[in-house]
Amino acid sequence: MGRGRRPTEEVRAEIVETAGKLLFESGMAGFTIEKVAALSGASKVTIYKFWPSKGALALAGYFTAVSETLAFPDSGDVEADLRTQLRAFVTLLTDTPAGNFLRELIGAAQTDPDLLSAYLSSYSSPRRALAIERLDAARSRGELREGLDSESVVDQLWGACYHRLLLPDQPITAAFADHLIDNLFHGIGKSPSIRSPQ
Amino acid sequence: MGRGRRPTEEVRAEIVETAGKLLFESGMAGFTIEKVAALSGASKVTIYKFWPSKGALALAGYFTAVSETLAFPDSGDVEADLRTQLRAFVTLLTDTPAGNFLRELIGAAQTDPDLLSAYLSSYSSPRRALAIERLDAARSRGELREGLDSESVVDQLWGACYHRLLLPDQPITAAFADHLIDNLFHGIGKSPSIRSPQ
Repeated sequence: MGRGRRPTEEVRAEIVETAGKLLFESGMAGFTIEKVAALSGASKVTIYKFWPSKGALALAGYFTAVSETLAFPDSGDVEADLRTQLRAFVTLLTDTPAGNFLRELIGAAQTDPDLLSAYLSSYSSPRRALAIERLDAARSRGELREGLDSESVVDQLWGACYHRLLLPDQPITAAFADHLIDNLFHGIGKSPSIRSPQ
Repeated sequence: MGRGRRPTEEVRAEIVETAGKLLFESGMAGFTIEKVAALSGASKVTIYKFWPSKGALALAGYFTAVSETLAFPDSGDVEADLRTQLRAFVTLLTDTPAGNFLRELIGAAQTDPDLLSAYLSSYSSPRRALAIERLDAARSRGELREGLDSESVVDQLWGACYHRLLLPDQPITAAFADHLIDNLFHGIGKSPSIRSPQ
């Protein structure tokens, strides 16, 4: 394709971007390594050098495709920033093909250890790290209580949404995102906190 | 088997109990309708009259098998009671075959609409209803704040555990259960609540 001399990082970035676009256009059903190769101009050999499977490539593409939508604002008000980010996450799950993509991959990963490993390393662990970074920054500024276990907060915000995605007993809505934030910042007990619930 | 005259409810209960026992002994790999029929003395025709599939029967058996372990105590202290129940749930997920059973079924349900429907109707919806009942009882006694959305609390306690079960970036432990309770009852913000975190 006459592109063999491009720097590795540039090739890699173009493959990832192409994979993310293809995923949002056609879902996992229409996602193949052949198509990513044809659209990006990279060879299948090159693609397999970086990603061991279709699932791993799709996850890398997805991570990049959603990174802007899921960025963590830092306005100095962590409650408002988490609310904004969580609402964007809810919209992504419900109004784009992302929800079905994630359901399908998390489902298949339960009986496919290689896919689960790719999911954790290429998607959920790096996303978790970004959330922890934002929470720890807020804690270090005294916006969150001392001794807070940030990891558990990840499971109570984004994890709670994944729970409804995979087991849809109840809908995923903006109001749900707000309840998740309210419960954590204002508590569920009768004791009044200084900030009152919305 | 000379048992044809037993009342329907008795037959049904015996099938469910047998299914739950078999599930904990052999997991989904060794779980078949034939075995439940042989062990319970019911015919396959009878079993299929009540449950449309192996998955639906396994879920009914599981619901009954764990109902005592996952019962909601009511001591008048909802925080202590939820902590006790959540720790029991964590132990069930990590120290018994339940964790793998749930992972496998929730995974398969993502691409099997009938199984998902059986999961919601036979297991997760009735479990959710039991939690809501306990939370609403506490709220009506003034132990939880007025206007609390109980459904979102379910996702932030048990749902958070399912998140780690399906995406094991972080372990499921008793300490994790405690963090989930602490975050909700004492808040994650800097504002001190009347009850201080443990």
